[in-house]
Amino acid sequence: MAAAPSPRTTSSVPIQLGDRSYDILIASGLLQDPHAWAGMAASTQAIIVTNTTVGPLYAARLAQSLKSRHATVHIVSLPDGEAHKTWLVLNGIFDALLENACDRKTVLYALGGGVVGDMTGFAAASYMRGVPFVQVPTTLLAQVDSSVGGKTAINHPLGKNMIGAFYQPLRVVCDLDTLDTLPAREFSAGLAEVIKYGPIFDMAFFDWLEANMDGLLARDKALVAHAVRRSCEIKAQVVGQDEREAGLRAILNFGHTFGHAIEAGMGYGAWLHGEAVGCGMVMAIRLSMRLGLVDAVFVDRVTALIRRAGLPAVGPALGASRYLELMRVDKKAEAGEIRFVVIDSPGRAVVRGAPDALVGEVIDESCRA
Amino acid sequence: MAAAPSPRTTSSVPIQLGDRSYDILIASGLLQDPHAWAGMAASTQAIIVTNTTVGPLYAARLAQSLKSRHATVHIVSLPDGEAHKTWLVLNGIFDALLENACDRKTVLYALGGGVVGDMTGFAAASYMRGVPFVQVPTTLLAQVDSSVGGKTAINHPLGKNMIGAFYQPLRVVCDLDTLDTLPAREFSAGLAEVIKYGPIFDMAFFDWLEANMDGLLARDKALVAHAVRRSCEIKAQVVGQDEREAGLRAILNFGHTFGHAIEAGMGYGAWLHGEAVGCGMVMAIRLSMRLGLVDAVFVDRVTALIRRAGLPAVGPALGASRYLELMRVDKKAEAGEIRFVVIDSPGRAVVRGAPDALVGEVIDESCRA
Repeated sequence: MAAAPSPRTTSSVPIQLGDRSYDILIASGLLQDPHAWAGMAASTQAIIVTNTTVGPLYAARLAQSLKSRHATVHIVSLPDGEAHKTWLVLNGIFDALLENACDRKTVLYALGGGVVGDMTGFAAASYMRGVPFVQVPTTLLAQVDSSVGGKTAINHPLGKNMIGAFYQPLRVVCDLDTLDTLPAREFSAGLAEVIKYGPIFDMAFFDWLEANMDGLLARDKALVAHAVRRSCEIKAQVVGQDEREAGLRAILNFGHTFGHAIEAGMGYGAWLHGEAVGCGMVMAIRLSMRLGLVDAVFVDRVTALIRRAGLPAVGPALGASRYLELMRVDKKAEAGEIRFVVIDSPGRAVVRGAPDALVGEVIDESCRA
Repeated sequence: MAAAPSPRTTSSVPIQLGDRSYDILIASGLLQDPHAWAGMAASTQAIIVTNTTVGPLYAARLAQSLKSRHATVHIVSLPDGEAHKTWLVLNGIFDALLENACDRKTVLYALGGGVVGDMTGFAAASYMRGVPFVQVPTTLLAQVDSSVGGKTAINHPLGKNMIGAFYQPLRVVCDLDTLDTLPAREFSAGLAEVIKYGPIFDMAFFDWLEANMDGLLARDKALVAHAVRRSCEIKAQVVGQDEREAGLRAILNFGHTFGHAIEAGMGYGAWLHGEAVGCGMVMAIRLSMRLGLVDAVFVDRVTALIRRAGLPAVGPALGASRYLELMRVDKKAEAGEIRFVVIDSPGRAVVRGAPDALVGEVIDESCRA
């Protein structure tokens, strides 16, 4: 019990949501560890949904590990990338489920990053009005953010994540070893969502990130294990209080209103989601300063850490009016008013509106002409 | 309080589902009655989803009635019929929502029959991960069955209602006047779901239906009001105990396993859903007899009432093996075993399997060669 934490020791972070409660397991080597699946309902059939990048690396290992739980394990491989988070690709999962006569007890395993998790989750939410699913995130971004909390969705040509469901997994299994094969650019994108938890919730964690950013970028397993665990703890605490984003949960979208505009404006996939969020956080923290909530020292500190993580701090020059147009269809907008997550004071976020002119100035100063 | 019930007096049937509870209102003239919408959250925008048959008759009346609640009321008209319960048509609703920059508070009104209700409900469940919706059913089938209980879905080429959600409306508003324009064939189809409630739950109601079938077919408003109210009461009682069909709720699928095979085998839309259910109930009651649960007198009694309602009691000759193949992908099937709702004793239903050979004999004797 008093042993020093190591990446080999499994951390378990509970998400408390009544009869939809579940655990996030975090450790090295979980994919091939039968204990990772213990206690979940077994079923005749299972489907691993993955993509063409992650599948060749890890799908066979997962399928082997699941053999004792399911008589048949199918593998469905989706094209890789945000640009494929569409109905057409989602429907490929339904085709596989129906062609294999999968019943209501069939378990779906989402093996991949945020796109695979979002699509598999929505497929599980919708197939026969709901079948069980397990998140097996293989990117840093998915491990610290998108696999936790039950948000699932696909994109619509007119907006990101516009069609989806709140649908909780049975479990989230984060095998830290899968991060070994993650390209540097995607690792940095994941760090954006890690850094996010500092300004909105926990400045002590932000201090720790500043002290350990070099080690994290070198993928020191113990440091990565701590970053994933602490991120999941914060997300669990927020989601446990507000599953369906009636209030508090919206703070997790810090940087996302600007970020979604960058993603949509550049075409899905041109910027990674985490890159857009990183740059979006720079804009959101500047907006917070212009609203008189934080000072320039804090803005510089957040911006510096985002840059150190290898993330872009300068936005694409789409023009302020295009940004505003794209942000008006954000899900947080109400009756045409854009809602921004801003930092009220370091470690505390609030959601509020802001005058278009002020937002435009922030965009102009944050984008390279 | 002691006044005799009249179709002008609004009946209110509560569905008790904790924080998802709502009322079914039943009366003539509700479409133009502002009280029908009282107490629901107002919002800037609303969308009436209807179809090309019902829209011209009632959409303007509903839009007028909603003007005090919503600054803007859009109307989206879908093609009419089960064959259009597809992703492509569903996506038309999402297009309209996004093109009009509809936010999370936008209310969707489903004005039409089961297809409109199922699609609007699934659109509401999925748009921005869930927006409020109201069922305004205009067919007998939708008023007594499909609009109540929160089942929403679209069809997949490989199976009916395979993609959907459990998602409860804010309210169900049944205006009995809308049944005036319902074609006789569709009125009979609705009676199938009314008759269903007798054998599975309430033989006193079945007796009443036998005594009043002529008056119902003549659309006597007081009789129709009673049939709708009693059907909704029974459905409310069953759904209140088992919202997500973990057990009891499955009895509402009496006749539906055979019926879905007829619908799929003939191509969606060739048989109306209620016609397929009527014929499916004849098969299911015969199966119940072959399983030794009910006697021939009861089989004849149920079959006779189904015929009197103007419903087909003889199935299409698809061949027993085709029926079995289609039924194996039914949502109630588990690991390839087909689950049938059978009558255990008059007024009581159970879900169980049956040998293929026995089922095949029932199909053969129930279909015209």
